[in-house]
Parts: sequence; structure tokens; C-alpha cells
Amino acid sequence: MNRIRIAQFGLGPIGIETLKLAATKPWARIVGGIDIDPAKIGQSLAQVTGVSALKGAKVHGSLDELLAKARPDVIFHTAVSRLKDAIAQIEPMARAGISVVSSCEELLYPPLREPLLAKRLDQLCKKHGARVLGTGVNPGFVMDVLPICLTGVCRNVRAIHVQRVVNAVTRRGPLQKKIGSGLPPAVFERRFKQGLAGHAGLKDSAALIAHCLGWKITSLTETCKAVVADHDIKTPHVEVKRGQCCGLHQHAKARVNGKVCLTLDLKMYLDAPNPHDACQIEGEPALNLVLNGGVAGDGATVASLVNAAPRILNAPPGLLLMTDIAVPCFA
Amino acid sequence: MNRIRIAQFGLGPIGIETLKLAATKPWARIVGGIDIDPAKIGQSLAQVTGVSALKGAKVHGSLDELLAKARPDVIFHTAVSRLKDAIAQIEPMARAGISVVSSCEELLYPPLREPLLAKRLDQLCKKHGARVLGTGVNPGFVMDVLPICLTGVCRNVRAIHVQRVVNAVTRRGPLQKKIGSGLPPAVFERRFKQGLAGHAGLKDSAALIAHCLGWKITSLTETCKAVVADHDIKTPHVEVKRGQCCGLHQHAKARVNGKVCLTLDLKMYLDAPNPHDACQIEGEPALNLVLNGGVAGDGATVASLVNAAPRILNAPPGLLLMTDIAVPCFA
Repeated sequence: MNRIRIAQFGLGPIGIETLKLAATKPWARIVGGIDIDPAKIGQSLAQVTGVSALKGAKVHGSLDELLAKARPDVIFHTAVSRLKDAIAQIEPMARAGISVVSSCEELLYPPLREPLLAKRLDQLCKKHGARVLGTGVNPGFVMDVLPICLTGVCRNVRAIHVQRVVNAVTRRGPLQKKIGSGLPPAVFERRFKQGLAGHAGLKDSAALIAHCLGWKITSLTETCKAVVADHDIKTPHVEVKRGQCCGLHQHAKARVNGKVCLTLDLKMYLDAPNPHDACQIEGEPALNLVLNGGVAGDGATVASLVNAAPRILNAPPGLLLMTDIAVPCFA
Repeated sequence: MNRIRIAQFGLGPIGIETLKLAATKPWARIVGGIDIDPAKIGQSLAQVTGVSALKGAKVHGSLDELLAKARPDVIFHTAVSRLKDAIAQIEPMARAGISVVSSCEELLYPPLREPLLAKRLDQLCKKHGARVLGTGVNPGFVMDVLPICLTGVCRNVRAIHVQRVVNAVTRRGPLQKKIGSGLPPAVFERRFKQGLAGHAGLKDSAALIAHCLGWKITSLTETCKAVVADHDIKTPHVEVKRGQCCGLHQHAKARVNGKVCLTLDLKMYLDAPNPHDACQIEGEPALNLVLNGGVAGDGATVASLVNAAPRILNAPPGLLLMTDIAVPCFA
């Protein structure tokens, strides 16, 4: 078997974990990394990751510099949340015929935010034989792909409701900050409205579900409230006093012809009790799913990226959706 | 959009329900049926199903007779559980370039029981541009595809355990009989050993999971015990006295190099309390899924067949597995 040649774009915490996991796979060969941090450029991936087997591959300052040395089949892209920024970084990869698995939340369902850019990227992929996919745990699995998967045994589907409760204490520092930990509640809510804080991808999950079910959404709204700490909380990354924001309660609601057919409810805060994922399908049969404890941690996000690599290479070229390719599976 | 031309092979209760559901789909056009029952041959599908819109399509006595009148894109095949019998019926369809979605339980993972026939059918499909898929709720979803789907967010998977509890009172007569209702327990257990009773497909589910995870099963065993009624039970289809068999407890266990890595536990009996489907992934992250109430009823089986039709037509020709094609989805 020819191993899949892998490179990593973005060597922050998620990028490094992605690379470390990929390095354990018998089907993968790591050929290089890309980052803009001058302190990392020129280092070996063994130095950056602590995995000595990666000493033959280096961190490059740009895609062009990487391509001068190596020819990856797949690049894991873990750099930005905004679709526009992601597409600007991914287009040159697609043009070089390299496939991309990205953690960019807005890449889950690109036509929602950038229909024209999405179309152009799709054409580019088809022309150059590349596949591009946005995935992750959320968006990418618990609040979209898993509910969609359940509808495969339904005779009809009237509405879908999804809830996710995450105890953010178990998560990394950047996430604890993104959800407003330690801010005055009003400041967090203002930052959410400015697009500077909160969970990215909830509307994107809703749009993917609606697309798969053939629902034409007539209104798609999203709210986000601060969760106010009722006790002092200290994590290795943040300190929150009683009365400050300790996380978020974000909610997306989609209507089709006036009727609410889709609600996605996300609570992500420090010390949240009973973390879990849940989904109710109103339909025939009605379905009621619970993932006790939820799908926890950044390890799962990284796994969803790495596991997707063999599956996209089996799909035809294009800008792909998670629901275009084969059923998720450990690889 | 060109509608998908649909025919139905086998006009028993499941076949008729499949046809009735397919007839409601805007993407489907029903072109005919096939059955060996002389009482049905020559009737219109409107007579057989009660759906007046189907009056233009007829029941034919054979594939050849159907093909003389119509050219289906997809045939729903709901006729037999044994793979050998199914393949004998499906091969002529594949040779005619017609794709098939079948409820044959052993078609879920054909290499388990008939590796040579499976290979030949796959080659036939590729030669003539046909897709063949075995699916359903169980096997086909709750005890195989859904657990596999969960592993897509796992960094590693050590073991998978699946449980399904079905209250058979809610199911159709043939199923109530298949699980031994009303038999002396020893008679049912003997009939299971002879392959004349019990649930078909448990080993097949195990084999599909192992295939997807790259596990080489070194031992695959299955047991089946009668569940003994502790009270008299009467359904529209069977009468069971206290002490008689009222259903089954079937269990499959797969070992890889001596270690149990897969258990599938199925309880299907009259008046079973707390029906549900559940799955635990031992891995990183550990996952714990429950479908409260389970995926109930034959309506779901029929839906899984009909919903698969558009997905197989989007896949390349061949003898397909559920995990080769796109994520299950209502269609």
C-alpha cells in the first residue's frame, strides 16, 4: 500500500496534535509543516511535536517552500475559523492538486456564507483533482452529521432538535477564553455580536442538516447569552469570579415556511454539570439519542480530521461535504 | 430532475410497505413489481398496495417479464435472508445494469459467508454499471453502521459493545414467529441451531464493524437462548403461555488475537421492557450512546431501504457496503 503523504498547515495546539496523531497511522507519511511563526520556521517537526520519528520533515514558511521539497497528498488545515480566510489559504493547495481536510468551522457548509467563493473552489478542485472538506466534532459530527445519520432510518422527518452541553473546564485555554471566561457578561455578549467571541459553526450545522433534508430555510437566527458563574472557578488557563461570565449558551433556530423545524442548543461553560450530546428526531419513527458524557475534548476533534483523510481520497474531486463522503470511521 | 425508476422484487408485507413508501417520493417513479405468487402476477400494483397512483404498473412473474415492459434504475429486493439465494436472484439484475437495494441480512457484509460469490457479483456489477447494497435497521444501522459512525471521532478504539432490546409485541407476525413465540424453549433453541429460527445478521454486523476498523477476527461465535415467558401473552399474531418461548436472547462475540473486542447483544421478545439501542466504544474518547425507545418497527426498515436508493446511484458501480457510500440520510 502506498502511504498517504501528509502535511500540516498551522502548528498551533490543534495542528500539533493532528500531526502527532497522523504520525501514529500506518497509512500516513508526514512530509512537512507550514506555519507563519518565525520561531518555528526551519525547525524539524520532531522539535515542534516531540515525535522523534518526524526529524526528517521540516516547518516551512509557505506552501511554495513546502512544495519545493515535498508533494503531500493531503494537508490538514487548522488555522482559521472564517471561511474567506480559509479559502484564501486553501485555494493554492487545491490548485496544486493537493486535498485538504480543514478544521475551519465555516467550511462545514460553504454555500451558507460564501456561495460564489465556494463554487469557485469547487471548480478549482475538480479541475486539479483535489478534495476539500471541513470537519470536526462540532461542527462536523455531534450537532449535524450524527443527527443526519439518524434520519436514514426515518420514513419522514418533521423537526430535529439537538443539544450539546460541554464542561469547558476539561478543554484547552483558547476555548475557555473564546467562551468569555472571566469577562463581564455584557462585554462577552457584545463581543459575540461583533463576531469576536462565541462558538463558530452553529448556523453552519443547521444549514448542512437543512441541505441534506431538502429543507429550504426561510429564517435562520442565532442568539448567545453569557452563562454567569455562581461560584469562583479557577482553571490552569483562566480565573473566573462569581458574577463573571464562565461560558456561553448559544442557540440557533431554523424555520421553514414559518415553522420551526430545527433547533441547535449549545451550552459550553466551566463546571457545566452532566455534559452530554442529545438529539430528538420528530418523525416516523421518532428517535431519541443521548451520548452520555458527550464527545469530549480536543482529542476527538483531531481524530475527526485525521480519520477523514483516507475517506476524502476515495471520493471524487470537489469541495466536499461530510455527507458527500463515506460514513465516518476510525482509520 | 430525472426521477429514479423503481421496481420491487418480492411483494410480501415488507415489499409492499417499501413500494408504498417509495411511491410517496418525488424523486421516484414506480415501474413494476416481481413476485412468484400466481395470485399476484398480472395484478396492478394499485391492487396489491392500495395506492391508486400505481395503477399503471403491474406485478410480473419474473425479471425478464418486467424488463420486457420497463427499465428500472433500482430494484428493491425483499425476498430472502440467505446470501446464496439472494445472489442468485440479484445476479441477473446486475447483469442487466440494474442497481439493487436489498433487505437480505447476509448481504450486509457478503465476504463473510460467500467470498467467491461476492467477488463474482462485484465484478458483474462493475462490468455492467450496477450497484448492489444490503441494508436495513438491523443489520444495516443500529448494531453496525451507527457504532462505526461513532468511531469517526476516536483517536483509538479498543473494543465496541452494542446492545439492542426490542419489544416484539410491536412487530409484525412473521417476526414474532421467527423469534420462537409459543414454542417450547428447547424446540426454539434446536431450530436456531438448525438455522431455521432466530435473528439473521448478527455475525454479519460484527464482520462489517471489524472490516471497517481493520480488525482481523480470530474467532467469531454466536449463541442464542430462548427467553421464557413469565406470564401469558397474546398478540394479534401469536399466543404464548407462561413457560413457553416468547423471544430470543442472541449474542455474538468477536475476538482478535484472543481478546474480546466486539460484543453484540440482542434481546427481542414479547413484552420486553425498556426497548432501546445502546453502544459503548472503549477508546479515546470513550463514547456511550443510547437510543431511548430504540429504532422501532418495520417502518424504519422500509425507510432505510428507500432512503438508500439515491445514495447508491451516487456511488461507483460494485457490490457496496453501507460504509462505502455516503452517510445515511432521509431522502
